[in-house]
Amino acid sequence: MSEVRQKAALAQEAASAMNRMTTEQKNEALKAMAAALITRQAEIIAANAEDLTRGRENGTSTSLLDRLALNEERIEGIAEGLRQIVELPDPVGELLEAFERPNGMKIEKIRVPLGVIGMIYEARPNVTVDAAGLCLKTGNCVVLRGGSAALSSNRKIVEVLREALSEKGLPIEALQLIEDSDRASVNEMLKLNGLLDVVIPRGGAALIRNVVENATVPVIETGAGICHVFVDESADLKMAASIAYNAKVQRPSVCNSIETLLVHRTVAERSLAELVAPMRQANVELRGCAETQALLDGIKPASDEDYSTEYNDYILNIKVVGGIDEALAHIRRFGTKHSECIVTESGANAERFLQDVDAAAVYHNVSTRFTDGFEFGFGAEIGISTQKLHARGPMGLPALTSTKYRIYGSGQIRG
Amino acid sequence: MSEVRQKAALAQEAASAMNRMTTEQKNEALKAMAAALITRQAEIIAANAEDLTRGRENGTSTSLLDRLALNEERIEGIAEGLRQIVELPDPVGELLEAFERPNGMKIEKIRVPLGVIGMIYEARPNVTVDAAGLCLKTGNCVVLRGGSAALSSNRKIVEVLREALSEKGLPIEALQLIEDSDRASVNEMLKLNGLLDVVIPRGGAALIRNVVENATVPVIETGAGICHVFVDESADLKMAASIAYNAKVQRPSVCNSIETLLVHRTVAERSLAELVAPMRQANVELRGCAETQALLDGIKPASDEDYSTEYNDYILNIKVVGGIDEALAHIRRFGTKHSECIVTESGANAERFLQDVDAAAVYHNVSTRFTDGFEFGFGAEIGISTQKLHARGPMGLPALTSTKYRIYGSGQIRG
Repeated sequence: MSEVRQKAALAQEAASAMNRMTTEQKNEALKAMAAALITRQAEIIAANAEDLTRGRENGTSTSLLDRLALNEERIEGIAEGLRQIVELPDPVGELLEAFERPNGMKIEKIRVPLGVIGMIYEARPNVTVDAAGLCLKTGNCVVLRGGSAALSSNRKIVEVLREALSEKGLPIEALQLIEDSDRASVNEMLKLNGLLDVVIPRGGAALIRNVVENATVPVIETGAGICHVFVDESADLKMAASIAYNAKVQRPSVCNSIETLLVHRTVAERSLAELVAPMRQANVELRGCAETQALLDGIKPASDEDYSTEYNDYILNIKVVGGIDEALAHIRRFGTKHSECIVTESGANAERFLQDVDAAAVYHNVSTRFTDGFEFGFGAEIGISTQKLHARGPMGLPALTSTKYRIYGSGQIRG
Repeated sequence: MSEVRQKAALAQEAASAMNRMTTEQKNEALKAMAAALITRQAEIIAANAEDLTRGRENGTSTSLLDRLALNEERIEGIAEGLRQIVELPDPVGELLEAFERPNGMKIEKIRVPLGVIGMIYEARPNVTVDAAGLCLKTGNCVVLRGGSAALSSNRKIVEVLREALSEKGLPIEALQLIEDSDRASVNEMLKLNGLLDVVIPRGGAALIRNVVENATVPVIETGAGICHVFVDESADLKMAASIAYNAKVQRPSVCNSIETLLVHRTVAERSLAELVAPMRQANVELRGCAETQALLDGIKPASDEDYSTEYNDYILNIKVVGGIDEALAHIRRFGTKHSECIVTESGANAERFLQDVDAAAVYHNVSTRFTDGFEFGFGAEIGISTQKLHARGPMGLPALTSTKYRIYGSGQIRG
């Protein structure tokens, strides 16, 4: 039996035991996990150094090495993440509905763990801890498959976390790490119906596409964000400039930052230069439609391919539109249903935009950068769902649960 | 462009208009659809006769021809189904959460349509109307792909329904029928990410397996039911016999009927013959484990393959078990997470069973036959979900919706 199938089967066998764990037991384990990461940080940093050395030898880029690197401060941040999960309410066991039918049977709908969650992600050891914490808090087992460049770090981290689980009486088989670094192990995971209840990809567009295209296990699609700010005719110009700047520049590498600024023609003709002045100062590369090119000097053309690209970088497309209809059509065509914003003083246009845009989060006069579990007040999140089934937007702990009907009777049969 | 892609694109274009329809507009259209089915029933019955003739020529089985056949009484029943959907509350627009964050932005979570739903089903013209009604009531567009044996009926029915939509100002493109009877058209639908928001299969195990294995569009898996009744040591024997009989015999062709009866050894040794006497009278073919064979005359052996088969017929496996642990292990191995029942007078065993069994509906002293939208009081259902994401168990109208966050602010940016 392959490593993937064997470990998923062990996790599936542990699911029933995990489902029985009380909130207190799970919280004690999370605290022990946080403490163990600190106590054993020297071992973790040493294992991480192996990954970094291998990465440097393989010519890994500086930015990827930076995401991979662990030090005492980062480990403290990761441990603090686990402590914050302890503080979140446990959704498992919550009674969602209770009603009695005319035949006397009583029906309850309660929250239950999903079962076994497969996580597929890149070479980021923090995701290993974060995903383990969120899945275990919700009574799930988890099979982790992180990027192979982080294998030494992940192996050590999972060893440390499993010891903490065992110490607190949780089944260690609830936490599995796939060590097989062959890409085939990912594709095998994606077909493990019956052993995995859901697969959640976390990473770049290529990783997510591979999961969506090949999984037969249900998937929660996360992340890809081609987001827009539309500056309407009646927009407060100062507010528009501030929101657009924040949505692009504050952290361009994340999914809720924008890639394209849509500007009403009246505003563009009057004040486009003013609107984008802060971006130019921040050395954002601007690309634009023909009208934009006519209004601003030194702007490259923006093609349909540009409008379809999640840059995750200091690059912004600008498109002049005739009004809200054209803005909506552009978003419908190029958006990824993540986060969209209208800046307007018109209540009617705001309502129309909020109603018509099909996205997880639609903003009126607020930066798209707020689509985030902490910013919404949900706490740590497993990702931001861009699909419409099960969960949409920032996924708090309830997104890691399912439901079950329990029916109590006294011999009822169907007539 | 293929028929499938073209029609899905038309449906996707109509999604925004459908999303704007009020409950009253949708209800008026549903009533007009019901009325039109009655007014034009002669045309529908004539089209259905073409399907029946072709079916007979192709040697279609009597039971399949029976499911395909329409007459005035059946059309009245189908129209009545639409009228019942009118009476159900419209979930779209429901405000699920509303809160304000410390920075002053106001967040609302509201129910929205899923968008475009692909329905893949067999040669049952009633499903055409039923699915159209449920999807349109929830503001969705729907692309129907029914079994090709019902094509003439479906074509006429959709023509009639679209006329009713148009009469009431709903976009006719919201309702699409795929006429291409090649199996490839199903497989093309399964990959229409971006045009279909979800695919729901409704039919036998092979149809569902094809959808689950090939879809890249999110799927709601429905239906397959290998369900069990476990008769515990302390069970009231009369109640157990009544529940087991009801769960097997009342309607064997449906997913919530049972395939296997698990009997505690003490009960089996004392009263197995009595327990299954009503089934024998009803000519249910019994298959059993070795112990069952020793206790009852003329029982065929039950193999693992039998335990894994959804008979949908008058056949029942019987297995003697040492107690609840063995019963739970059998259900874990062979169940499809649909509906499971324990008959017991032990509160502790009942709680353990309800807690431990991982299924959409778990029953204590009630027949599994109640897993049904009407029996639960939800009204018409699009299917019974056997997966854990999005919806589990009978899917009422809310299962055909997603959610969206609307955020209102005054220039908030992220620090």
